[in-house]
Amino acid sequence: MQSGLLLDLYQLTMAQTYVAEGMDRLATFSLSVRNLPPNRGYLVAAGLDDVLSYLESFRFSGAELDFLDSTNLFTTPLLERLRSLTFTGSVRALPEGTVCFADEPLLEVTAPIVEAQLVETMLLNQIQLQTLVATKAARCVQAAAGRRLVDFALRRAHGGEAGMKVARASFIGGFEATSNVLASQAYGIAAAGTMAHSFIEAFPDEPAAFRAYAAAYPERAVLLVDTYDSIEGIRNAVTVGQELAASGHRLAGVRLDSGDFASLSREARALLDEGGLRDATVFASGGLDEYAIEDLVGAGAPIDGFGVGTLLGVSADAPHLDVAYKLVSYDGHPRMKFSEAKATWPGAKQVWRRRTDLGIEDWLGLADEPSPANTQPLLVEVMRSGQRTSPAEPLAALQARRGEQIGVLPDTTRQLRAPSPLVPHKTAALLELRRELAGRQWPAVEAHP
Amino acid sequence: MQSGLLLDLYQLTMAQTYVAEGMDRLATFSLSVRNLPPNRGYLVAAGLDDVLSYLESFRFSGAELDFLDSTNLFTTPLLERLRSLTFTGSVRALPEGTVCFADEPLLEVTAPIVEAQLVETMLLNQIQLQTLVATKAARCVQAAAGRRLVDFALRRAHGGEAGMKVARASFIGGFEATSNVLASQAYGIAAAGTMAHSFIEAFPDEPAAFRAYAAAYPERAVLLVDTYDSIEGIRNAVTVGQELAASGHRLAGVRLDSGDFASLSREARALLDEGGLRDATVFASGGLDEYAIEDLVGAGAPIDGFGVGTLLGVSADAPHLDVAYKLVSYDGHPRMKFSEAKATWPGAKQVWRRRTDLGIEDWLGLADEPSPANTQPLLVEVMRSGQRTSPAEPLAALQARRGEQIGVLPDTTRQLRAPSPLVPHKTAALLELRRELAGRQWPAVEAHP
Repeated sequence: MQSGLLLDLYQLTMAQTYVAEGMDRLATFSLSVRNLPPNRGYLVAAGLDDVLSYLESFRFSGAELDFLDSTNLFTTPLLERLRSLTFTGSVRALPEGTVCFADEPLLEVTAPIVEAQLVETMLLNQIQLQTLVATKAARCVQAAAGRRLVDFALRRAHGGEAGMKVARASFIGGFEATSNVLASQAYGIAAAGTMAHSFIEAFPDEPAAFRAYAAAYPERAVLLVDTYDSIEGIRNAVTVGQELAASGHRLAGVRLDSGDFASLSREARALLDEGGLRDATVFASGGLDEYAIEDLVGAGAPIDGFGVGTLLGVSADAPHLDVAYKLVSYDGHPRMKFSEAKATWPGAKQVWRRRTDLGIEDWLGLADEPSPANTQPLLVEVMRSGQRTSPAEPLAALQARRGEQIGVLPDTTRQLRAPSPLVPHKTAALLELRRELAGRQWPAVEAHP
Repeated sequence: MQSGLLLDLYQLTMAQTYVAEGMDRLATFSLSVRNLPPNRGYLVAAGLDDVLSYLESFRFSGAELDFLDSTNLFTTPLLERLRSLTFTGSVRALPEGTVCFADEPLLEVTAPIVEAQLVETMLLNQIQLQTLVATKAARCVQAAAGRRLVDFALRRAHGGEAGMKVARASFIGGFEATSNVLASQAYGIAAAGTMAHSFIEAFPDEPAAFRAYAAAYPERAVLLVDTYDSIEGIRNAVTVGQELAASGHRLAGVRLDSGDFASLSREARALLDEGGLRDATVFASGGLDEYAIEDLVGAGAPIDGFGVGTLLGVSADAPHLDVAYKLVSYDGHPRMKFSEAKATWPGAKQVWRRRTDLGIEDWLGLADEPSPANTQPLLVEVMRSGQRTSPAEPLAALQARRGEQIGVLPDTTRQLRAPSPLVPHKTAALLELRRELAGRQWPAVEAHP
């Protein structure tokens, strides 16, 4: 979905005022998360590729300008500015799959303020969803400890577009496959799926349904066993699995979708093994998230893979990020906001990371100051003069980056429950700039910036 | 976003099996919510119009069929069935804006089973999001008790499409305006907005920013006062408001966006009144939802309107609905599922409602049984042979329906915290059918259907 009008009205009324005031100098905006949600020790940056595509194609069509004109809210000078407007600025960003923390910019935009302001709404929109879901997915992957994870979220995602982005972000987070066929086509992610209860119910009985599906898919049938009674369903699946084996095929597995997964998976494993179906896997789905998966894995439940849907797609325990897009510099002068509990860090910034024996240390500083010793800068230029500086990275590379970076986090930061998020050090230059701005502009509120 | 491939893989593998078995008789599927989320006494049905648009245009393009062929998962008979496939079925549904409860079908689809199965994913997807948000919005409207509500959710909605649907559903729920300009254009909802902190920060100081905006919008400026210090900001707004008044214009209001809204709104009201700006309104935004609004209204905070964003767009306290699409009849025979805690009600159904002195009573029964005395049926035919039976209703009619129906709910059902949801009575015929199916098919599990 791309339209110049897909933004908040105030972006346009502010743009009109900027144009009226002759204010269209270069501004830098920083997009970051102010506070991590509960039980989040880290975030996995995602959504940048869609942001860059949005910026590359951002413009107002004639029909859109006509609509704006019809509102009687806008003057001819603004409409003329919009008529020729494209995004001409630059973007520095964390590559997707990068692990990051509160206050660290996920991206910084530098452009004439009218352009940089207008794109705010959709930059927040795209980064929040994918970062939220990539993080949730990465946590599921940690919990699953090597077991297969499949995205089942499309049906309860917030729209078709959200379903696509959830598939993409959960793959970056480490998922192996998706049920979403369009996402499989668009992103080259493996498609996976089993069968629905309705399928079973459409047949006279469960064995008839299992046999029909096994006949259609004699090498990849994962039979859903809980339509009527899970244990009886497993027994029926074993029967059909033995029939498949007798004809030179093999049952791929069974799917549990309700009940006590820890005990049902043990019963399923035992019945499959007793039936000579040691290759058949046990797959579980239904109300799962990282906490439930961690508990099942911790309890030694013999489950080979998990389908995660609703609670992944809406990141149910943390359904939004406290993400903001803040002006940090205008016409060469650093800017900041002082509101209680929402004060910002001024100036175009850089984030540096150092590996240590215990994990990592991060620094937040000004973009133009020298790197702290033995660190690597994380923000890289990804767009210049409105054009990408390099082609999109393959999704597998983003997935791998996430894995490597989570791999070196200390356990206390990585743990799923009550983690200690890493807090970036602030460089002396950044602290000094903030003190200076706080003192200079609004001495009355210096006590609580 | 419309593509034949925007569905779960298993819809296609099941379709293949149905085709292979020669099973393509009429099926009825029922889409309902099994359990209301916490603190929800009712739901507001929404999303039907998008469902009908989806069904009207559902088909597979040549390129999509080529992709499916390339997966080596599908046979020629399935691909041929898909090549000519359109949705030819009928739909009975609750009109949007209808108040409803657990187990009551939001819609029922009757179509050849291949068609009815394939559309499952997107029907769930569209109904869940809009019903969730219309319900959340309706709760905010209750809490606001007549004060103005504006949708600010686009920036933190789950994608652009979600932002559009949130604007639409929150309007059905009773909101007055949206910040989303494209939604304003597409749905005819009033657009509203103020200014961002970045706007203030781009100017040398706050009064300069206020004056520039007031010059551009001398009749509709709502000045954001918390960029540096809210009280100081209100004083600056009063000064600019007096300048506007002196030149024959008027300050529309101030916006509070952080801090203690109850006390800040009193200070704002007092300072505006003392400054002779009794017409200027006080608007609040920032982390608001129905609970916060109810508390502020209860405390008598002099706030004239609320902007509700993040917590509305993701329905933060209840970010998903336990919504399911279940086969209830195939080839004229009723069907049901028996899984623990997820058992379904068999047969094509109707919901009837009766007004009583204390509120309403609902009945859930079979579609072909007579209406209980003094009731009105709620499910109406909205699609026949794949075509809408009537044009889409205006959004304002849906909003009004919601208002009327919530208006007659008892307080215990309507209250925002710990409500008692209405539970529909089940007709004798429905109870008897469920007993009969439970007894006939799976006597072993009759104890816990």
